[in-house]
Amino acid sequence: MELDAVLEDSCARDWQTVTPDSVDEVRFAVIGLGWFTKGRALPALEKSDRCEPSVLVSSSTEKAERVAADTEGAERGITYDEFHDGVARDAYDAVYIVTPNALHLEYVETATAFGKAVLCEKPMERDSERASELRDVAAAADVDLMIAYRMQTEPTVRRARELIAGGYIGDPMSVTGDMSQRLLDRVNPDPDQWRLNETLAGGGALFDIGIYPLNTARFLLEEDPIAVTGNVSSTHEAFDDVDETVAFSVEFPGEVYAQCYASHNARQSSGITVTGTAGQVRIEPAFFQDQARQLHISRGDSRASITVTAVDQMREEFDYFADRLRGAKPIGPDGDHGLVDMRAMEAVYEAAESDRWITVD
Amino acid sequence: MELDAVLEDSCARDWQTVTPDSVDEVRFAVIGLGWFTKGRALPALEKSDRCEPSVLVSSSTEKAERVAADTEGAERGITYDEFHDGVARDAYDAVYIVTPNALHLEYVETATAFGKAVLCEKPMERDSERASELRDVAAAADVDLMIAYRMQTEPTVRRARELIAGGYIGDPMSVTGDMSQRLLDRVNPDPDQWRLNETLAGGGALFDIGIYPLNTARFLLEEDPIAVTGNVSSTHEAFDDVDETVAFSVEFPGEVYAQCYASHNARQSSGITVTGTAGQVRIEPAFFQDQARQLHISRGDSRASITVTAVDQMREEFDYFADRLRGAKPIGPDGDHGLVDMRAMEAVYEAAESDRWITVD
Repeated sequence: MELDAVLEDSCARDWQTVTPDSVDEVRFAVIGLGWFTKGRALPALEKSDRCEPSVLVSSSTEKAERVAADTEGAERGITYDEFHDGVARDAYDAVYIVTPNALHLEYVETATAFGKAVLCEKPMERDSERASELRDVAAAADVDLMIAYRMQTEPTVRRARELIAGGYIGDPMSVTGDMSQRLLDRVNPDPDQWRLNETLAGGGALFDIGIYPLNTARFLLEEDPIAVTGNVSSTHEAFDDVDETVAFSVEFPGEVYAQCYASHNARQSSGITVTGTAGQVRIEPAFFQDQARQLHISRGDSRASITVTAVDQMREEFDYFADRLRGAKPIGPDGDHGLVDMRAMEAVYEAAESDRWITVD
Repeated sequence: MELDAVLEDSCARDWQTVTPDSVDEVRFAVIGLGWFTKGRALPALEKSDRCEPSVLVSSSTEKAERVAADTEGAERGITYDEFHDGVARDAYDAVYIVTPNALHLEYVETATAFGKAVLCEKPMERDSERASELRDVAAAADVDLMIAYRMQTEPTVRRARELIAGGYIGDPMSVTGDMSQRLLDRVNPDPDQWRLNETLAGGGALFDIGIYPLNTARFLLEEDPIAVTGNVSSTHEAFDDVDETVAFSVEFPGEVYAQCYASHNARQSSGITVTGTAGQVRIEPAFFQDQARQLHISRGDSRASITVTAVDQMREEFDYFADRLRGAKPIGPDGDHGLVDMRAMEAVYEAAESDRWITVD
């Protein structure tokens, strides 16, 4: 592949199988109205011409109705209990679950009982046992389940993956990936937020952001982890319950190793690099939204840095989900895919406890 | 520290204590005339106004004299045996040892017996036991010993270190570092080269190039390793004896983790990144010679990439060594410093064997 081909083709929406005007919109019940939903998910659904945020679900009628009043396309604001009771169930085709991790399963149970397709935020659940149950519940109901890995519909990541699959870097040899942010300073100062609560979150920096380099490494290599090791640490009291920082290593088939790092206490940083026998692909910044991606590629004696216009990652993800629901192609990343990350991350915690490498079952 | 200060001051030669015209040149016996010596070390010594490559030592008189005839400032070409016998010992003040690792000790023994200062290539020796003996031999003879870590006199690395020490990135949290090259394709195609021979080299990619991210992480953090883990692999027959590729993790004090990678079979790549609570410093490319350094710094909402003119790293190193020999300041990195890397690298091999984290003694 030549450099001009890399430049010309952004891989944007290479997943598209049906055009938006040929099919019905997918109407979502959006479950959980935290800062991520309000700041990221709802604006994306408002902009989408394939999706509609028709029902908003929160802890109180008052909050749900208030957010619904501010959201274009929202018909109803209802409570979690009302959702479980089937209120407004004819007003949505699918659910987008963006609650604390430990609540994913119960909403999947209800949604699948109603025959609704499910887009479930990552990590899948608070632990692999519940994640496994979540997958089985969706399978038993025969509804579509997708885990919301927005990197998999990010055009720059898809381009990097295509380059790797096409042999541009030779045989992949190693991956380095990191994601860090100052959670309490820059994102959410609340020390009582669910992300810091082990019962609700299941894990800390690893579950919340370490999953980005982990899952993106899997996506880029098209391989799954064999074994992991790692260490976790916390320096703030707020992180007594879960890991503030994690450094972990992942062994992939063919003796390819990924060296990863994530922290809720380090300066915002994100990148992923795959080095092969013949070249290297690096995306940096990689994982945070609103930043123009930089794709750095090198091969032979050439190096190039390509700035790729930022897309609305959430809109790409929702539109892809709608495309798969309305088209004939199977949906993914599915529950089996999400479960691999759950098991790998649990193995990292086990490794951190035991100072060993742990096989990922 | 402001960005313009970062731009203005390159840290070049901030180590200088005496000017070259105020002191005598340091005359070197250069021991070992392989491609690195001929391509890198001798040209640097020729250009230096502080050093002179006065005696060249090789396996045969013919080779030593041939290279000496082509080298400005060289007075004699002698054999290894002649060197041990004290031939031309009045024609040099110091030795630069660039033989296979397992031979470093014997040349240090002879050089220190003659009271000569020693600049010894990294890694110090083929194992930590011999490295420890090497250090003791130099100490007993009361001669100056420096291990040739050229990154420690690289202006961009020194600037990054100054930024970190000055608090520019807050508290350091993590390091990622890598160095890879296609040894057989791009550097030296000989399958019989000593770097592939465990008896002569002691280790493979880790000893030869993994030591760059390891030692540079130590230098940037001003800390030494507590524990390590890692994995090694080899895919080519030529690497039956030593590791072709290594992925390793290093725990530093304060729960700072370095994730490192080195390969003699991956595309040329080199970089080191230190992420702190407030900012990030990244050097890329970092370790190979002749490439203009790029220093990428970020803090708060700012990012900058600064291109730093390439220096002759070997000349910087030789001139620094001469400055310390002729001036009053103590020399370093010394034998104790080099021994820490030897022990850390042996611990990586032990970790790779045992799938554990290994404490560095």
